[in-house]
Amino acid sequence: MKIALLLTGNELMTGDTVDSNSAMIAQSLAVQGFDVAHKVTVGDDLNLIVAELDKLSTMYSAIIVNGGLGPTVDDLTAQALSMLTAQPLVEHANALAHVNEWCGRRGVAANAANLKQTMLPAKASVLANPIGSAVGIALHHRNCLLLCTPGVPPELAAMLEGSVLEALKQGFPDATARLVRRLKLFGMGESALQQIIADQCPNWPSEVVVGFRAGMPLLELKLEIEDEAHLALRDQCEKELRQVVGGFIVGENDDTLSDIVIGLLQRQQQQLTLAESCTGGMIASNITAVSGASSVFGAGFVSYSNAIKESVLGVDAALINQHGAVSEPVVRAMAEGALQRSSADCAIAVSGVAGPEGGTDDKPVGTVWIAWGGVDNLNTHCFHYPVGRAMFQTIVSALALDLLRRYLLGFNEVPNYFQRKRSK
Amino acid sequence: MKIALLLTGNELMTGDTVDSNSAMIAQSLAVQGFDVAHKVTVGDDLNLIVAELDKLSTMYSAIIVNGGLGPTVDDLTAQALSMLTAQPLVEHANALAHVNEWCGRRGVAANAANLKQTMLPAKASVLANPIGSAVGIALHHRNCLLLCTPGVPPELAAMLEGSVLEALKQGFPDATARLVRRLKLFGMGESALQQIIADQCPNWPSEVVVGFRAGMPLLELKLEIEDEAHLALRDQCEKELRQVVGGFIVGENDDTLSDIVIGLLQRQQQQLTLAESCTGGMIASNITAVSGASSVFGAGFVSYSNAIKESVLGVDAALINQHGAVSEPVVRAMAEGALQRSSADCAIAVSGVAGPEGGTDDKPVGTVWIAWGGVDNLNTHCFHYPVGRAMFQTIVSALALDLLRRYLLGFNEVPNYFQRKRSK
Repeated sequence: MKIALLLTGNELMTGDTVDSNSAMIAQSLAVQGFDVAHKVTVGDDLNLIVAELDKLSTMYSAIIVNGGLGPTVDDLTAQALSMLTAQPLVEHANALAHVNEWCGRRGVAANAANLKQTMLPAKASVLANPIGSAVGIALHHRNCLLLCTPGVPPELAAMLEGSVLEALKQGFPDATARLVRRLKLFGMGESALQQIIADQCPNWPSEVVVGFRAGMPLLELKLEIEDEAHLALRDQCEKELRQVVGGFIVGENDDTLSDIVIGLLQRQQQQLTLAESCTGGMIASNITAVSGASSVFGAGFVSYSNAIKESVLGVDAALINQHGAVSEPVVRAMAEGALQRSSADCAIAVSGVAGPEGGTDDKPVGTVWIAWGGVDNLNTHCFHYPVGRAMFQTIVSALALDLLRRYLLGFNEVPNYFQRKRSK
Repeated sequence: MKIALLLTGNELMTGDTVDSNSAMIAQSLAVQGFDVAHKVTVGDDLNLIVAELDKLSTMYSAIIVNGGLGPTVDDLTAQALSMLTAQPLVEHANALAHVNEWCGRRGVAANAANLKQTMLPAKASVLANPIGSAVGIALHHRNCLLLCTPGVPPELAAMLEGSVLEALKQGFPDATARLVRRLKLFGMGESALQQIIADQCPNWPSEVVVGFRAGMPLLELKLEIEDEAHLALRDQCEKELRQVVGGFIVGENDDTLSDIVIGLLQRQQQQLTLAESCTGGMIASNITAVSGASSVFGAGFVSYSNAIKESVLGVDAALINQHGAVSEPVVRAMAEGALQRSSADCAIAVSGVAGPEGGTDDKPVGTVWIAWGGVDNLNTHCFHYPVGRAMFQTIVSALALDLLRRYLLGFNEVPNYFQRKRSK
């Protein structure tokens, strides 16, 4: 079922705020069978808001309104609904109870600004907001259901799963929730994966819809069905997919590479250490972003200069002189030095040319040597990603974690990461 | 002057792409005097696109259209313009020349998909695209100027500064460019800064408009004037501001804390080292995000475990046993150990409880000790930011860099970071 979205707020017009709420709304409701087909954004302008609501209500059966529920004078949603539907604003008892309860928890009495949020159109009903002071508003206009939500993202998120979803389901019982399976892949782009599915899974059933969400470093693959009867079919598709690209699938739902690597290290009771040059601490930062990282990670070394590679990690100066800092022997020695100094079981070491300066004919910007593995089992490989400094550091950090993931899983080959489609 | 924005693309409706183009357009054009007042987003739906263009053209004198210029069948902008204005699509010689030149540079001949991009409404004119294969389109409908731009962000950015801006200036010579001065602050929120300006700069002139753009970790403050005649007035305002909150102003325009700290270290010919526990490499990663960091940064230590604090940094085990890892003596010893092992001139060391686990009554989640300064001049301070693990790591990393910035500038007091407004 198609729905519309009206976002309000001056900050959305000036570009001072990048609107991420509408993506949240679209994604959250799509899996329930409600697709945003039309999105309008206007500033805090009463006449524009009323005109747009009036127009959209002739085109759609439901509109989600976001923003304008706050306590200040530029929060105009209730007033716009009142004008639109020619209903007076009256105090709603359950809105008042909510505001009083909310203020009470903070040990303050409701002030005039808080009480403004209890004045809703006479025929409106209240949408529960489990976090903030502003209640949401549900109201009919023409044959359209208007659901008004707050602009504060955590409040919006809570309501999308709660009162808003409930109101939509109640208003449109025929909308069919989609059953989505989300897989996370590293090292393969959307078009390459599409091509692989087209080539290698020729009997893909139309009931299982494939969707993608490009992200860096992970690609999300969605397998959607609309009917529980097709669950077995979806499972079969996932099985087929795993047969052809299983090594690239790192996890599911909100998994990150760090989550997966830490989980593997925990299960195998291994300690990790890191020796980073060109990634400059980003791998360590990604690992320690995960709560519980301390169970498998004790020491990281950012050996950004050659002198520190020698003094801190014990890399032989002669190796650096002979092969350069970006070389197989040096990255191997960095990993060995980190393992020795940390007593860890496995290591990642990286040394590369992030750029934009520092490239040579021999080792252009984007070149990186990575070492990974255990004390007696270190692997090394050279990669080349001339994609700009920030993207280079992001990709190399993820790549290194993925190589370790594959090592911990016993995969031995270095895959063809980010293979390009044959150009036309 | 108010303008409208029409964005097209299915990926914007599903939420698979968060729209950052419209913020780029709004910010880029606002300084030129063109304010986005109305924004509509629709999928790749020809009838909806035509209907919205028609409606918006009755309300505004200019519309920026974004997306739909690509070579594939779901790129519908030219076709929509043709329907809207009842003009046939014809091959434009300068569009063809652009496509041929673009393909030629890549050593390929233009194919049918490329050539589709040369078919524009008969009365349209071409907007130069210095990067991509798709030219932009300018066309009048009713009394409205339609400027169509590509969805690929770098192409859009280049055209906003080039052909699009030129067309707007030519079409609307009376629009007044704003003269914006952008300052970056750390450690102060928007409402606190607003209050300070209200309290301490009572004679602020109305010609100098104050704007904010909230970001983490830096807050952007904008001082806007519309007339060059007020440049001196704006400079005077900036001077006043620097008198009251100068210590919080870290830089201007796109400066980051790392940029500023690296610049200071370079000018003072000092080398930095880092000993990170709870930030887990994020400070090193922020520093090495900057090209040229190697001139002032050689070694970072991520000493996540107590054993590594002892073995790698030489922290006395007795200190950890007696005071705990999150303590003044330990963070000081971490800084001293890093300085000694790296031969650097100044250091930052951090040890804290990022959470969600690991807090105690004595040292709750959000507690962090920071040490910063030079060998003979180490400062330490305890802070408390119970804001969730990711935000804690982000704030503490920035805070540590800001403390070092102030140290390098000779500011001695630890400021009242992120002071709250008095609650009502």
